[in-house]
Amino acid sequence: MVTTTGISDRYRIETKQLDMPPRLLLGPGPANVNPRVLSAMSISPVGHLDPTYLALMDEIRDLLRYAWQTENELTISVSGTGTAAMEATLANAVEPGDVVLVGVKGYFGNRLVDMAGRYGGDVRTMTKPWGQVFSLEEIKTNLENHKPAILALVHAETSTGACQPLEGVADLCHQHGCLLIVDTVTSLGGVPLYIDEWGIDLAYSCSQKGLGCPPGASPFTMSSRAVEKLNNRPKPVPNWYLDMTLLAKYWGEQRVYHHTAPINSNYALRESLRIVAEEGLEQRWNRHQQNAEMLWSGLAELGLSCHVDREHRLPTLTTVRIPDGVDGKAIARKLLTEYNIEIAGGLGELGGKVWRIGLMGYNSRPENVLLLLDALEKVIK
Amino acid sequence: MVTTTGISDRYRIETKQLDMPPRLLLGPGPANVNPRVLSAMSISPVGHLDPTYLALMDEIRDLLRYAWQTENELTISVSGTGTAAMEATLANAVEPGDVVLVGVKGYFGNRLVDMAGRYGGDVRTMTKPWGQVFSLEEIKTNLENHKPAILALVHAETSTGACQPLEGVADLCHQHGCLLIVDTVTSLGGVPLYIDEWGIDLAYSCSQKGLGCPPGASPFTMSSRAVEKLNNRPKPVPNWYLDMTLLAKYWGEQRVYHHTAPINSNYALRESLRIVAEEGLEQRWNRHQQNAEMLWSGLAELGLSCHVDREHRLPTLTTVRIPDGVDGKAIARKLLTEYNIEIAGGLGELGGKVWRIGLMGYNSRPENVLLLLDALEKVIK
Repeated sequence: MVTTTGISDRYRIETKQLDMPPRLLLGPGPANVNPRVLSAMSISPVGHLDPTYLALMDEIRDLLRYAWQTENELTISVSGTGTAAMEATLANAVEPGDVVLVGVKGYFGNRLVDMAGRYGGDVRTMTKPWGQVFSLEEIKTNLENHKPAILALVHAETSTGACQPLEGVADLCHQHGCLLIVDTVTSLGGVPLYIDEWGIDLAYSCSQKGLGCPPGASPFTMSSRAVEKLNNRPKPVPNWYLDMTLLAKYWGEQRVYHHTAPINSNYALRESLRIVAEEGLEQRWNRHQQNAEMLWSGLAELGLSCHVDREHRLPTLTTVRIPDGVDGKAIARKLLTEYNIEIAGGLGELGGKVWRIGLMGYNSRPENVLLLLDALEKVIK
Repeated sequence: MVTTTGISDRYRIETKQLDMPPRLLLGPGPANVNPRVLSAMSISPVGHLDPTYLALMDEIRDLLRYAWQTENELTISVSGTGTAAMEATLANAVEPGDVVLVGVKGYFGNRLVDMAGRYGGDVRTMTKPWGQVFSLEEIKTNLENHKPAILALVHAETSTGACQPLEGVADLCHQHGCLLIVDTVTSLGGVPLYIDEWGIDLAYSCSQKGLGCPPGASPFTMSSRAVEKLNNRPKPVPNWYLDMTLLAKYWGEQRVYHHTAPINSNYALRESLRIVAEEGLEQRWNRHQQNAEMLWSGLAELGLSCHVDREHRLPTLTTVRIPDGVDGKAIARKLLTEYNIEIAGGLGELGGKVWRIGLMGYNSRPENVLLLLDALEKVIK
């Protein structure tokens, strides 16, 4: 018997069996997931050094390479949610004193600024009104002015619904000896994206949007150019959990223990990536585009307008202007409480001005568009 | 239609339906989990700002307070595995230049040294042979010599199986104006542990050992004394994802969005903590102790000896000396391939010298002890 005197029962609270409401998640993520993914997630865990788990890690790496269209050796899932993968990117790319140029045209650009600063970057910004994107000419001018070691851009701004064109950007960066970081949190699995063809050096994403998986294990990839910078650091990465010099030894052939991975989250991620490979990127990107266009037409019929120009509108995330005199929060609350449908309000500068509607991964289906438009019409009236 | 030219199918690999082997996980974790936990984990996710999810966060906080025996306001689950919670502890506690005294008597003491150094700590160590623990007198002397701002100790060393007595340590620390960090990764939920009564200022743990949950969301707690130090920092915490000044606003009444939490991992964590509360700490700690004693007796009958003195032996993790002339790795491999039982070898200094056998959470059951002893006898012969 062990000594157990003095145990307090103050927080030994009684709780009910978990019974979450059947939400249709049409906000900026998480989105609902294919039941196959939840089924894989609930398989009993094996050890993080079990040969069967190591084989699964290899499959995740390859399937991520397909989804991202890259041959990068260092393509892994980070053991945390998308923000952890974002932090991993900055922690491993930014060295103290590096000039880091960040394109800010929404909330997540600002987050890049904050994080890059915490890793000692000499952070410069170029800005655009929220909902717009940078032209190649603007990027060129800023690269020439700031001569950064790193340019960080958000491909799909989850706060604005705008898609930043990336073709040609890396060529400019590499001419200036600069690495290109791209946030693909709301594009991977839903929007055309070619890591290698576009020359992107570091990218991160999440599992719970275009990939159609619960949050918990998050895609990360790094080119050999970025690995070279990492290997030449005079001091260790100032973040042990996300240090890619250590993680590369666990994901690579050496299989050196680093930390206990979120086993079940990786079961789920594998299944969601498997579904991406079965469907194929071409069909998947077209499906997202078609369902988004169906949404945009329906919104127009309701007299609602989109915040982003058609040309740069993301199929995964649509920002809809809240009409004058309408209480946007009340509408979203009604959708949730009366119809179990989640949409989100604006973030930061767009707070109170837009709703954010996501059609991502498994949720990008015509029946969800129909239901949302119908419910929206009812609650707005 | 979107432009989809140039998609490469090189990594569009064909994979089979996920079919993991039915392992009995008797290593240092992860351990198997109650089916109730897997069932909760596979419930469809809701949003991270859904009122029902916010209520679940409150339940997790209270149930963690019970498991840890603390009233700390800042008691949360970190969105990553145990090492993320460890990193969160050091990132938020250690300021550049702080003298950090670390008790090193195993692998995870060394990890504390590495991490504390990355956050700018002036790291000092006190050491003991792996498998032993520090006396109160030794701790007192080292506190007087080093005058640290922080003392970090591992309660349950997963690499050695030794349990560090903690009563009286915090009093010494606080007399010297020093905070006490304790690693409770292999003790929470299996070994007597009283955060408040023992005066511990910061503690972290994992979900996949004594709590009986898959890895993915990890316990963290911080006393008001530690929060005060955090709030007096002149500069932001150099880790955005794990910055408790931001996380406190998401877990607290303000509910400010920080990152998308691993929703399903927290469903699972809640269920595992609920099971802890149902069983009660007294019964749970006694169960772990009794099954460990059954294991120790059985090992002695097989002629095997434990590495740690009886007095300081952990019930959750036992290190067994590999007899001379026995290939420890081969034995572990045979247990895995012939009987689907996972045990682990030694880490670091104890590599090749011991096996590590875990009886944790749901797996601490007499039938598992019987089966392991029987299988071990067969493969050793």
